[in-house]
Amino acid sequence: MTAVSEPRATKAIARARRRAPYDAESLLDVAVQVFNERGYDGTSMEDLAQAAGISKSSFYHHVEGKEALLAAACDRALDALTAIREDPLAQEGRAVERLENVLRLTVMALITELPYVTLLLRVRGNTASEKKALERRRDFDRFATDLVTQAIADGDLRTDIEPALATKLVFGLVNSLIEWYRPGRTPSDEVVNSTVSLALVGLRA
Amino acid sequence: MTAVSEPRATKAIARARRRAPYDAESLLDVAVQVFNERGYDGTSMEDLAQAAGISKSSFYHHVEGKEALLAAACDRALDALTAIREDPLAQEGRAVERLENVLRLTVMALITELPYVTLLLRVRGNTASEKKALERRRDFDRFATDLVTQAIADGDLRTDIEPALATKLVFGLVNSLIEWYRPGRTPSDEVVNSTVSLALVGLRA
Repeated sequence: MTAVSEPRATKAIARARRRAPYDAESLLDVAVQVFNERGYDGTSMEDLAQAAGISKSSFYHHVEGKEALLAAACDRALDALTAIREDPLAQEGRAVERLENVLRLTVMALITELPYVTLLLRVRGNTASEKKALERRRDFDRFATDLVTQAIADGDLRTDIEPALATKLVFGLVNSLIEWYRPGRTPSDEVVNSTVSLALVGLRA
Repeated sequence: MTAVSEPRATKAIARARRRAPYDAESLLDVAVQVFNERGYDGTSMEDLAQAAGISKSSFYHHVEGKEALLAAACDRALDALTAIREDPLAQEGRAVERLENVLRLTVMALITELPYVTLLLRVRGNTASEKKALERRRDFDRFATDLVTQAIADGDLRTDIEPALATKLVFGLVNSLIEWYRPGRTPSDEVVNSTVSLALVGLRA
């Protein structure tokens, strides 16, 4: 049950504050940071404006509102997932090799887009934007499950764990990074290699 | 990145509503359900009273307030973790066997106390109660890391993954259950066996 996440120095916020004038992207960075610390439902536009150090009306000058920020943040994370599916490494070769590539690319995307993916993985489906984001996540789920199913059929993965369950467990392992990975503490290539290795060794036939 | 959690039919709430008069425990069930759906910070006492179908003042008759509910819920999950540490199965035998027992007991506790552990694992440390809960979680982390470290020293687990990282990955895998496990969909013994097996096979020397 290990692994602890705590609110930490809001680097994105400090960075955004140093960078003036604001643009939509730097405000999105701030919003994602605050959403991750307080929860989307617990955050008001006033909170976001305060965190950015600008007035609420200035904030509204750049962005439409809270839900638009959430949608944009989820889209950024989901676009990273779509890019993985479309990567040649995910398209060619034996299913087990494609699976290994997809796992590796997923860990790398988690590290590169950590705050965005963290937000995405905590979305509950309470609003239209969240429901849409969950639907796009499900597309990735199906893609991943198909890959595991194919690799089992090829005889490359163990057959005693049902494909959908195996997929959930392996991607559960990968996604747990958002709970414990802190940039800089462990070299990211060590995290990538250990995560992919642990996931795949356990799954191999 | 798979595994999707959505708000679902609030069974605890329906159950609590059928059961009158309310007691502190049934209201805690309702509160945990609502916290998990909307986030603790996004939930008001008014929301909780509405979900329970009673007035806010009746709700306050049974419980002190929102933070007391959060503390009680986290304590219930943390007491389950403490019970694992104190279980004879976690105390006797080779470290690798104790680790396997602890993983198995943890998955079982996750399944039995799913809403409570879900809430605990999402706590961010924003309030005094949350900080206290995170501190108790860290005790369990240290216990788990010590066990992995010992099992590596015994030569039973692979040496190419650093003990703290291996512990985070393996418990990340186990904890991911809160994201995708739905009671009744997959038999719980299959989930327990597959999870423990996948985690340990990947880790073995």
